[in-house]
Amino acid sequence: MSVNKTAHAFSKPQFEALLNRRFFYAPAFEIYGGVAGLYDYGPPGSSLQANITAEWRKHFIVEENMLEIDSTVMTPAPVFETSGHVARFADWMVKDTKTGDVLRADHLVKNVLEARLAGDREARGLAAHMKEDDKKKKKKVKSVAVQLPDEAVKEYERILAQLDNHSGPQLGELCREHDIRNPDTTNEVSEPQLFNLMFTSSIGPTGQHPGYLRPETAQGHFLNFSRLLEFNNGRVPFASAQIGRSFRNEISPRAGLLRVREFTMAEIEHFVDPTDKRHARFNEVRDVILTLLDRTVQEAGGSQVTKMTVGEAVDKGIIANETLGYFVVRIYQYLVKIGINPARLRFRQHMANEMAHYATDCWDAEIENSYGWTECVGCADRAAYDLSVHSKKTGHPLVVRQALKEPIVIEKLAAEFNKKVLGKAFGKDAGFVMKLFDEYDEAQLLKAQGELAQGSTTVVTPEGKEVKLSPEHLTIERKTFKQSIREYTPNVIEPSFGLGRILYVLLEHNFWAREQDIDRGVLSLPAVVAPTKVLIVPLSAKEEFDPLVQEVSSKLRKAGVFSRVDDSNTSIGKRYARNDELGTPFGVTLDFASVANRTMTLRERDTTEQLIGDIDAVIAVVTELVDDTIGWPEACRRLRAYDGVQAVE
Amino acid sequence: MSVNKTAHAFSKPQFEALLNRRFFYAPAFEIYGGVAGLYDYGPPGSSLQANITAEWRKHFIVEENMLEIDSTVMTPAPVFETSGHVARFADWMVKDTKTGDVLRADHLVKNVLEARLAGDREARGLAAHMKEDDKKKKKKVKSVAVQLPDEAVKEYERILAQLDNHSGPQLGELCREHDIRNPDTTNEVSEPQLFNLMFTSSIGPTGQHPGYLRPETAQGHFLNFSRLLEFNNGRVPFASAQIGRSFRNEISPRAGLLRVREFTMAEIEHFVDPTDKRHARFNEVRDVILTLLDRTVQEAGGSQVTKMTVGEAVDKGIIANETLGYFVVRIYQYLVKIGINPARLRFRQHMANEMAHYATDCWDAEIENSYGWTECVGCADRAAYDLSVHSKKTGHPLVVRQALKEPIVIEKLAAEFNKKVLGKAFGKDAGFVMKLFDEYDEAQLLKAQGELAQGSTTVVTPEGKEVKLSPEHLTIERKTFKQSIREYTPNVIEPSFGLGRILYVLLEHNFWAREQDIDRGVLSLPAVVAPTKVLIVPLSAKEEFDPLVQEVSSKLRKAGVFSRVDDSNTSIGKRYARNDELGTPFGVTLDFASVANRTMTLRERDTTEQLIGDIDAVIAVVTELVDDTIGWPEACRRLRAYDGVQAVE
Repeated sequence: MSVNKTAHAFSKPQFEALLNRRFFYAPAFEIYGGVAGLYDYGPPGSSLQANITAEWRKHFIVEENMLEIDSTVMTPAPVFETSGHVARFADWMVKDTKTGDVLRADHLVKNVLEARLAGDREARGLAAHMKEDDKKKKKKVKSVAVQLPDEAVKEYERILAQLDNHSGPQLGELCREHDIRNPDTTNEVSEPQLFNLMFTSSIGPTGQHPGYLRPETAQGHFLNFSRLLEFNNGRVPFASAQIGRSFRNEISPRAGLLRVREFTMAEIEHFVDPTDKRHARFNEVRDVILTLLDRTVQEAGGSQVTKMTVGEAVDKGIIANETLGYFVVRIYQYLVKIGINPARLRFRQHMANEMAHYATDCWDAEIENSYGWTECVGCADRAAYDLSVHSKKTGHPLVVRQALKEPIVIEKLAAEFNKKVLGKAFGKDAGFVMKLFDEYDEAQLLKAQGELAQGSTTVVTPEGKEVKLSPEHLTIERKTFKQSIREYTPNVIEPSFGLGRILYVLLEHNFWAREQDIDRGVLSLPAVVAPTKVLIVPLSAKEEFDPLVQEVSSKLRKAGVFSRVDDSNTSIGKRYARNDELGTPFGVTLDFASVANRTMTLRERDTTEQLIGDIDAVIAVVTELVDDTIGWPEACRRLRAYDGVQAVE
Repeated sequence: MSVNKTAHAFSKPQFEALLNRRFFYAPAFEIYGGVAGLYDYGPPGSSLQANITAEWRKHFIVEENMLEIDSTVMTPAPVFETSGHVARFADWMVKDTKTGDVLRADHLVKNVLEARLAGDREARGLAAHMKEDDKKKKKKVKSVAVQLPDEAVKEYERILAQLDNHSGPQLGELCREHDIRNPDTTNEVSEPQLFNLMFTSSIGPTGQHPGYLRPETAQGHFLNFSRLLEFNNGRVPFASAQIGRSFRNEISPRAGLLRVREFTMAEIEHFVDPTDKRHARFNEVRDVILTLLDRTVQEAGGSQVTKMTVGEAVDKGIIANETLGYFVVRIYQYLVKIGINPARLRFRQHMANEMAHYATDCWDAEIENSYGWTECVGCADRAAYDLSVHSKKTGHPLVVRQALKEPIVIEKLAAEFNKKVLGKAFGKDAGFVMKLFDEYDEAQLLKAQGELAQGSTTVVTPEGKEVKLSPEHLTIERKTFKQSIREYTPNVIEPSFGLGRILYVLLEHNFWAREQDIDRGVLSLPAVVAPTKVLIVPLSAKEEFDPLVQEVSSKLRKAGVFSRVDDSNTSIGKRYARNDELGTPFGVTLDFASVANRTMTLRERDTTEQLIGDIDAVIAVVTELVDDTIGWPEACRRLRAYDGVQAVE
């Protein structure tokens, strides 16, 4: 297609007006004044979301044979106490010292410093090159054109590049050092405090069970690990997947769908042997080239990306292992397939302080949009953390038991008891003593061995009674054991998708305006995710078109192509324009010629070119176009060009 | 198919063991001890749910051209204050007067009286006829075989038939009158108190916005009404639809998936002209026969159903209108299509006290299962209630404005002011006076007219000032008006589906055991909802089968048929047995003959019959079987019967 979709700069007001007018989404409870961070999806937004989700299910669950689960949102408190969310799932917030308004500390620092840099660029006479972005930021924090010392510019840029690497106290330090205030009031702000982002509730009629709404779906996978492993016939690696709602009580959500309090996630937990993180299908993707922003570059204050194959990135140890690399590629392929511009997609590695303490490596798929670079997918190696903590807390072993082909012979210290003597000496405490030594690790056994060599070692029962043991009760010696089962806690590679964010940037990437008609928006969504695939346009709502409309509609439905009829009382051109805004890739028109000759025209959204042919031939072509088995050039070969008298544009 | 699936009585323990073993679903947070009323779906349960949902979307949203939306779960309190949920979305609970245990009042009455009736049947020597059901109830409340007076039996039966018709105080009265106590402790119970079933939370960091988790998705439709109407080009009737999670903090949930605290609903709000509730497609369904349990039968204490066509039911006024009748049929068709046994499905009309005060008519689709008759879908005519209350509260008009073909001329009282005199006399209050009379209804105007005839009428300003008006200020007379726009609040017909309940009864209806192997469960799920459509079974995991497995797998995927490979290290018979339990309708086997001759066997789950043919021929047949364009007898005509040496059962 020879359409120049970037002839005009992206106009955010025009884009937002389109989304609002066509009800892709809108603030929830709008007639009640709305609540920040909560949005409802209208018909095109819902369809787009359903299609993005269906494609996700196909790309990951079906093609990778994953085990889908659906766990609850409402979660009793002990689960998140164990997982660490109660203590650590929090953001740093500051309060305006006079008004008490609440701001997220890192966002405050970012907005103020970016505004100062924008003001600096303006003062230096670089205003002509000012980005749309800059204008917006300036407005948001009411900045002015003030030139900064060169050193300050460098310092601010360094801070911004590493912003995610700062702790709360460090953010407070930055506010003091650089006199960062609440831009709405110019008042100073308080020291950063932690605010837990989980919504709280209470389960049951007597308030006896405090509960949280899950902020991610992951714990549901971990808690069901044993059942999933059994379902998979005890084999590892395998992955579970879940698509579902999560909730985060954001401090002061702005940025539309990019920061919301309720959202749909899609998460994968791939369970893998910690000693073997190779992936069976890695060779299929080895040569895929990725745009990477690695940890070392960021820690040096930079943001330049590198392009390299995933094979090279894994070989060089930039990406920690094959499985992580494999998923990074699959994420890339999915995003591009649904219509994300690959030139505006990069994978950013987490810096040391940014990553959870237990994680081995983590890469975010970041997508550029009018708000900057936004994390839309995270892909982390969480090691064995989650399964270990839940296992320890509940006493339920979340492990893999692998039959070894050849038993391993190992040598280790072990206690052997003279049960008769022990029983006689300590009665019911004898059982406790034996269990205790059974649980001792190598160091503890070594210590006890040493003490016994000196004469005796003492243990304390749960009742506080001291039991003095001597060599007549037990001996501790190095012995050989044969092990035919290997038991281990698998590691977890977690790709985690924010579907609402992906939906939003997808809309931005596919929005443009026609050169000849700058006020007319078009959403060039790929057919695979477009809310409606084919628009059926009868010339008018007259009854004589009804049988044909019914026929075309029913034949498309049988071919699995989702269509809508627009027989509203307005011109065909206006109906097409409305559907350009809705992202409908194809339109077919039924007019008097259709009734007379059984012909139908086919219009392509981006080029507005039209073809004509027999009704059944057009249905066959449009079905292949929607299924992406042919492109528009091939359609032009199969059908005649239409230059009918009846102008429909 | 000549399989007798009802040869053996339904065994609940065997059924539940299957669901648990194959991880259809399990208590959420099981390793933490679980929480009543919260369940996680495992892989087959998730797939089944996804398929039920996909079929729902096709049957309702696509075929009826509905507008899908996706609104938030988290809802600020004012919305539910207006809708009436804060005051009335509650159940009556009683407390054990000694232990403080909480019970739902209506369930308590039901369980105790049913147990007494069961004990009575046993005492009367009807024990041989005791239903499975009775045994269960007896056990639950520790009842004993005690014969009741004949009158008590009648009285209890009358109470049970009308249980849903009782208010809280009436339930309390029943407890006292019939000495109904907590069966677990034999202690008396307190007077019933209302307990609100909504989960509460708080939105934002400062706790300034109390919020609720929605207990149904409906309010999201109503609040977006204006946007939806505009999206539909201002036309009525139209329907919005939503599939999403809802939450109810049930008092003491039991009965597995039938009473849970978090569940997936699918709701339709069909907006219709209150003066015209006909439905354009009613004639297509007029002759469908329904099983109805109407209001009058229940109010007379009975439970006998009537079979009649929906046309007759609407004509006789048993079902209130065509649109309601149309949806009852569509609900019926959907349930039967996904595999509900129509002989165990009835539509029960709500009794007067049971229905919300604003509703015109309401029918529940009730499905029989081992817990009794369970409401799985509600279908109510909610009149204009919801739109009216939100409109009144917010001042945002939720109305349809319909251009009339011919203007209507109406005559009504109207006030005409002498603005000059009025302005002079009352200054800035003149505006208030005019606005006030503009809002007066007919009765108020009539009263003022009478007072003016007597000399004067007085109104009070918001500041409390009395304004005395005389005929020099205004006249009130009957005038004719021409109206070219009709403005009205649409009525709402609401079909509301509990997908988890449907999923559960669907599993019960399709569970059976083979006569020759009573311990072996089979789930005869229709292909349209079966979690996996085709099982691919290589003789072993040997590498020589890999290319064929890949080929069959990929060809099925291209044909849109979801398959799974089972190459686990166990006999083919065991692998088929596992998939009978998972409800997989077809299996194909690849063995040495396949490698040599490119043939493949095809097995049908219910009959266990096997056919054989070329790989591509088998793929073509199984695709048609899954799409339900052919049945098994036709498959038997197209492929040869298989009676191979290699017994696979």
